[in-house]
Amino acid sequence: QREQWVKNITHCQNDHLNTKLIAEKLPGDFIISFTCLVCDHLLCDPVQAPCGHLFCRSCIIKFTHVLGPHCPACNFSCAPDELIPPAKTFLSTLYSLPLLCPCEGCGEHVQLGVFKAHCLNHEFEKGENRHSSQFQNYLLINKGG
Amino acid sequence: QREQWVKNITHCQNDHLNTKLIAEKLPGDFIISFTCLVCDHLLCDPVQAPCGHLFCRSCIIKFTHVLGPHCPACNFSCAPDELIPPAKTFLSTLYSLPLLCPCEGCGEHVQLGVFKAHCLNHEFEKGENRHSSQFQNYLLINKGG
Ligand SMILES: [Zn+2]
Ligand SMILES: [Zn+2]
Ligand SMILES: [Zn+2]
Ligand SMILES: [Zn+2]
Ligand SMILES: [Zn+2]
Ligand SMILES: [Zn+2]
Ligand SMILES: [Zn+2]
Ligand SMILES: [Zn+2]
Repeated sequence: QREQWVKNITHCQNDHLNTKLIAEKLPGDFIISFTCLVCDHLLCDPVQAPCGHLFCRSCIIKFTHVLGPHCPACNFSCAPDELIPPAKTFLSTLYSLPLLCPCEGCGEHVQLGVFKAHCLNHEFEKGENRHSSQFQNYLLINKGG
Repeated sequence: QREQWVKNITHCQNDHLNTKLIAEKLPGDFIISFTCLVCDHLLCDPVQAPCGHLFCRSCIIKFTHVLGPHCPACNFSCAPDELIPPAKTFLSTLYSLPLLCPCEGCGEHVQLGVFKAHCLNHEFEKGENRHSSQFQNYLLINKGG
């Protein structure tokens, strides 16, 4: 059912991170507590419903827009204006989760909170290598003095 | 059912900590991931079964001794020699949970990992106050010089 929601409602498969990226074999219930109950990805910009269940902000907004203001897990009332930010202790644990960088030749363990920046840096490096001769020219011209 | 197990099998109500001691309003699924699936207390010396479920070491040993080597949550095989320590990331999160010290006049937020030491210190202080005149005598006699 959730796969169907991801396909038809949230369209987040390219924006959100898979729980399989988690670099350690953590207890299942612990991983579930960091998982969006709409899309099953790692929580992205999480919000908490009055029932205590958590979702990506974009997921629950799209979900309740289409299917009505109810929690997809427990059916309790869940309107967009009832969503609150989760406790700081929870968020700091979420952002500290160690993910395995999937980029070829890296394999570093990177905390979720800096994972995007880390991956962007790989993109930057790739771009740099592609233009390396150009960059070297720039360095030669600007050798100082 | 769990209350019955605590009464009849684990007898841990005086040894383990209640999840209500948690000082922040954390998401329910997050709290569940730190809860013993036998006794419902905060995990004490946690061990992980092959199915990924977690229990206090003493709880699962007593439970399987009485009811057989099966996980109380999912019924999967769970013999004492199959129990492993949970991942370090999980343990450090567990031991960092902020608890509210229930001692009169304290009300500090104390991390689970040092909660016992904190409470023992209150006991020590109480004892010290009880014997304070005796202690003052000791100080007068040993004023130095
Ligand atoms: Zn998603
Ligand atoms: Zn989501
Ligand atoms: Zn709910
Ligand atoms: Zn990397
Ligand atoms: Zn207990
Ligand atoms: Zn227990
Ligand atoms: Zn189990
Ligand atoms: Zn205290």
